Amino acid sequence: MKALVYQGPGNRSWRDMPMPEVVDPGDAVVRVDAVTICGTDLHILKGDVPTVDQGRILGHEAVGTIVETGSGVTTRRPGDRVLVSCVTACGRCRYCRSGMYGQCLGGGGWILGHRIDGTQAEYVRVPFADTSTYLVPDGVADESVLMLADILPTSYEVGVLNGRVQPGDTVAVVGAGPIGLAAITAARLFTPGHIVAIDLAQPRLDAALHFGADIVTEPERAQETVAELTGGLGADVAIEAVGVADTFELCTRLVRPGGHVANIGVHGGPATLHLEDLWIRNITITTGLVDTHSTPTLLRMIEAGRLDTGAFVTHRFALAEMEKAYEVFSAAATTGALKVVLTREGM
Amino acid sequence: MKALVYQGPGNRSWRDMPMPEVVDPGDAVVRVDAVTICGTDLHILKGDVPTVDQGRILGHEAVGTIVETGSGVTTRRPGDRVLVSCVTACGRCRYCRSGMYGQCLGGGGWILGHRIDGTQAEYVRVPFADTSTYLVPDGVADESVLMLADILPTSYEVGVLNGRVQPGDTVAVVGAGPIGLAAITAARLFTPGHIVAIDLAQPRLDAALHFGADIVTEPERAQETVAELTGGLGADVAIEAVGVADTFELCTRLVRPGGHVANIGVHGGPATLHLEDLWIRNITITTGLVDTHSTPTLLRMIEAGRLDTGAFVTHRFALAEMEKAYEVFSAAATTGALKVVLTREGM
Amino acid sequence: MKALVYQGPGNRSWRDMPMPEVVDPGDAVVRVDAVTICGTDLHILKGDVPTVDQGRILGHEAVGTIVETGSGVTTRRPGDRVLVSCVTACGRCRYCRSGMYGQCLGGGGWILGHRIDGTQAEYVRVPFADTSTYLVPDGVADESVLMLADILPTSYEVGVLNGRVQPGDTVAVVGAGPIGLAAITAARLFTPGHIVAIDLAQPRLDAALHFGADIVTEPERAQETVAELTGGLGADVAIEAVGVADTFELCTRLVRPGGHVANIGVHGGPATLHLEDLWIRNITITTGLVDTHSTPTLLRMIEAGRLDTGAFVTHRFALAEMEKAYEVFSAAATTGALKVVLTREGM
Amino acid sequence: MKALVYQGPGNRSWRDMPMPEVVDPGDAVVRVDAVTICGTDLHILKGDVPTVDQGRILGHEAVGTIVETGSGVTTRRPGDRVLVSCVTACGRCRYCRSGMYGQCLGGGGWILGHRIDGTQAEYVRVPFADTSTYLVPDGVADESVLMLADILPTSYEVGVLNGRVQPGDTVAVVGAGPIGLAAITAARLFTPGHIVAIDLAQPRLDAALHFGADIVTEPERAQETVAELTGGLGADVAIEAVGVADTFELCTRLVRPGGHVANIGVHGGPATLHLEDLWIRNITITTGLVDTHSTPTLLRMIEAGRLDTGAFVTHRFALAEMEKAYEVFSAAATTGALKVVLTREGM
Repeated sequence: MKALVYQGPGNRSWRDMPMPEVVDPGDAVVRVDAVTICGTDLHILKGDVPTVDQGRILGHEAVGTIVETGSGVTTRRPGDRVLVSCVTACGRCRYCRSGMYGQCLGGGGWILGHRIDGTQAEYVRVPFADTSTYLVPDGVADESVLMLADILPTSYEVGVLNGRVQPGDTVAVVGAGPIGLAAITAARLFTPGHIVAIDLAQPRLDAALHFGADIVTEPERAQETVAELTGGLGADVAIEAVGVADTFELCTRLVRPGGHVANIGVHGGPATLHLEDLWIRNITITTGLVDTHSTPTLLRMIEAGRLDTGAFVTHRFALAEMEKAYEVFSAAATTGALKVVLTREGM
Repeated sequence: MKALVYQGPGNRSWRDMPMPEVVDPGDAVVRVDAVTICGTDLHILKGDVPTVDQGRILGHEAVGTIVETGSGVTTRRPGDRVLVSCVTACGRCRYCRSGMYGQCLGGGGWILGHRIDGTQAEYVRVPFADTSTYLVPDGVADESVLMLADILPTSYEVGVLNGRVQPGDTVAVVGAGPIGLAAITAARLFTPGHIVAIDLAQPRLDAALHFGADIVTEPERAQETVAELTGGLGADVAIEAVGVADTFELCTRLVRPGGHVANIGVHGGPATLHLEDLWIRNITITTGLVDTHSTPTLLRMIEAGRLDTGAFVTHRFALAEMEKAYEVFSAAATTGALKVVLTREGM
Repeated sequence: MKALVYQGPGNRSWRDMPMPEVVDPGDAVVRVDAVTICGTDLHILKGDVPTVDQGRILGHEAVGTIVETGSGVTTRRPGDRVLVSCVTACGRCRYCRSGMYGQCLGGGGWILGHRIDGTQAEYVRVPFADTSTYLVPDGVADESVLMLADILPTSYEVGVLNGRVQPGDTVAVVGAGPIGLAAITAARLFTPGHIVAIDLAQPRLDAALHFGADIVTEPERAQETVAELTGGLGADVAIEAVGVADTFELCTRLVRPGGHVANIGVHGGPATLHLEDLWIRNITITTGLVDTHSTPTLLRMIEAGRLDTGAFVTHRFALAEMEKAYEVFSAAATTGALKVVLTREGM
Repeated sequence: MKALVYQGPGNRSWRDMPMPEVVDPGDAVVRVDAVTICGTDLHILKGDVPTVDQGRILGHEAVGTIVETGSGVTTRRPGDRVLVSCVTACGRCRYCRSGMYGQCLGGGGWILGHRIDGTQAEYVRVPFADTSTYLVPDGVADESVLMLADILPTSYEVGVLNGRVQPGDTVAVVGAGPIGLAAITAARLFTPGHIVAIDLAQPRLDAALHFGADIVTEPERAQETVAELTGGLGADVAIEAVGVADTFELCTRLVRPGGHVANIGVHGGPATLHLEDLWIRNITITTGLVDTHSTPTLLRMIEAGRLDTGAFVTHRFALAEMEKAYEVFSAAATTGALKVVLTREGM
């Protein structure tokens, strides 16, 4: 089969790889029907994620069809149409028992396209298939469901639920790339009073308005804008959706006493925490890898027509056009790409 | 009357001051029957709290007897024996309505011995008396109740409740001074599995054992000790009870994925937040000034014999011995002072 | 001044009454600019609420202008435009301190138009004005705000928050009168997957669809309908909005294992609780009088344009047309009245 | 092997039965080292649980040693010493994913000694062994761990956690049999202010004092006793630990406005819910089968010496004395039996 292989920093190729097989009793082999590319894949390709070995097939998001299952798999069978989640859950460890699958101690967590071969391929082996895949209801498009593989549960759980967004809140979202736009989408489920999107790039701010922010501004004016909206108090919730120190620190300045800073961004270095200001302000700061405990809920919402993922998909390709899809996604600043979708049927 | 007056950095005196009077309709004037000194008072005396003006009477903790009330006071009357809390609550603003009295927007918060004259005096004016004093039940000693003016609600709310201590948890308390010891006391209300106290000074570690920690260690060995106790995972809750960057950063290393870091310490400078490690670990960090929403609960617990505050009081003085009490408290390293109590009856 | 006076069962009159005056230091006298009639007022008029004395002015909902304040009132002044809430809060007792104002032990709770004279008058005395009235932002219509005096906080707090409605939930609302329609409106703030409205009367079911239910059905078919929607499991939340045993018992049959039954209805008799079925099903049942802790939040939502109350007001009158308004409201089955609004300006 | 077999109402025997074998890939066969008898077993023997077929081996609590595992079992192996829980969890369904294992939709829930053969035998087949057994730490006695098979997680989760017991609370426990005593034990983990035990039988009230209740009373005087303790308000939490209408209804009278009624009792008939009194009182009522989500926590607490289960075991037998153990347990009123333990080593 064909797969997108990481061959060391700056080096990838779409090439022949052996067909995956069932190795452990809990495994399933899934034919990939639709797959996408994540910003994290670009980080890996730069060499920023040293835990990824050369020769690894990338990708941790897919919708597909099960073709084979191990002897221990009890709730999935060949032919099932499933969502393959970015987080694999052993379903047995202390963290899985408490719904914190991203911290799985039993060999799961984020492993696809990271510690084991991933989904940017014609077929993928998925361990712990009973607890790491989700049956897709009839009548729901692959493309919609694909947005639940990572970006939507991440923004919903790590941004909106961790941030405790409540009806009427003023929510500041710092960063209006795909994950920030997903945070805006997810925040709207709780009907905040105001969503303020903050970014440097005007096209991203335009996108934020389209996704449902009601106010957009650049970082320099963010504090002033939020203060005006909130009688000088600050935001109830500030969501960090970039992953650099500056934006995190901005969040800690934007939030009101008693408010929440929810960090979604993937950080490569430390930030300064101004405890001399914050110690007295009753602030809660949260971090997190997605746990995907919300995936079934989000799936029901798509099925019920309550969550529209259409605006995320800006470009569509056949699976065989993987290289081209990477080029478009890598050049988001010029192509305007948010999420690209590659489908088997496209081939 | 006599009072302890801040006369600029390094300079205090116990001297004659005018008797306080009712100014606003919500005020009460309280005769001070018992008062204590807080570490914060020492900070003020060093000049570290520039919002305190020269000529200010210090002190934000007392038990006393109401001698006069304003026309708007409806639930207190002269003769009532009351706890005067470190936090004054207007009872009307957005924060008071949500029980976050420490963040009061209506003229309260921490004002006694800070922005208005305080409790280290024979009499004190207490604004918003209905919502800022607590009736003391018969049969409960002043000295016990005095520990509810600041130290116990602070450690309970900002340390234990913010940290979400649960039965069976492994709780690391970094710093075994009075507030750390109070955090140990408060944590025990939830029956944690282990309480690990961490400090540099052996006498403080001894005190921690006496207050109920089951394991004590120095900072250098803290991570190893906690790892051994928890199968390598880390503490469920790490409580910062010092107020410097090093101890805060230690807390972020001690905590397990999914755990809580609860900062109680008063910080004078920033800390480094290693988001490159923490972003993926589902950590919650909280800060806070005490809100005193738990004060009535703690009062009921003292009345029911469920909370023993006796071990906190190491030295007792008459009110007129204020200067001597400051000397003993300031030299805690040699005197072993935890909390000193000064009483009117002692005079 | 004129006021609507309860003169014993079946007997009311709009007649001259003495002008109210400030009695206690916390009182305000408010000129009534807009007022409405509640289903509870009809119950009182039938004689169903024996705690209401003859000669009582009815009404517990108003928007008005403060004309006089007592000496203890600190945050309201003559000229302020305020919402008068159905719940009066002393702001000092144990329940007020925990935001449970409806259970106020200090002389508040539901007292207006019940234990003291109410709002269906040209003027009304409001005790504890600092904590029992809400400043109305400029630019928001009296009529919109008036829906926050009772019906919306009641349905939001007692129905939706107590019921723990979450995004994606299937919510069954039993009863599609004004309070049920308000529960539908409030539930939508959390973007449930499905809202099923259940009622006997087709016009009410039509109204439910208009307010945002996506499925409506009669009680007999409710279990079947909910089962179809939920794979046989049952509703995540069932909200009782009628106040009789049958509808409450229906709610306990509609709810899934682990779900919530939130009772809003005012009951005059007992219901049968089938513990032989329910003991094993992890059900949570809640009851409650509104606490109005959410009123400031809902006010911000109206100001931000996130909560539209327009559809509730079906009939408008001048204050002097009080008798006529009662007739229209009492005959809701034929007039289709939901909420009637009477305004001073109408006079 | 020998096993205790239900042979129709009133009829049991300890007799030869075939050795259990691995049937499904997730199964383990466990040698029973220690087992106990539950009040539910007595109900089954009376014929009260029609879902139990004749010929069924009873028992849903054991500590044992794994002797064989199916091909899909990944975290247990022969020789492992395990707790066999009363609740079997498929680990894959919607309820298992949210930690509500008692409501398992995938073939688990309470099945041992109910829908499949149970633990009162020399060997037992345990389905879904990875998620339905718990590794026992070295150095912890079988007898202690056995109390975690049902009685302690049930009282902790369904009584104390559902009831939201908090430090300082007044907790009323209605019924002082084994489950009520376990509720007292579990409640103490949160340091309530008062625990009031209520029962008709003086020996049970004596036991309640021994287990940590500080006040005991008969049902008739319960309301008065609780009122005296709480300034007339009522209990913060009332825990029903009997399972009849009268005691449930007593709980609803004992609880204060805003309080919690947590039903643990297994009910055979309906109760009357006095909504005409309760609708206005902000009451929360919960029911539940144990989910055993707390079992690992309770196990850690036993290991840490924070939970002493010794007082529950009143009688000890060899496994072969099963008939005698049933006689003693059935005659608890005269034998004073709380929990009886039967061990293999005893043979």
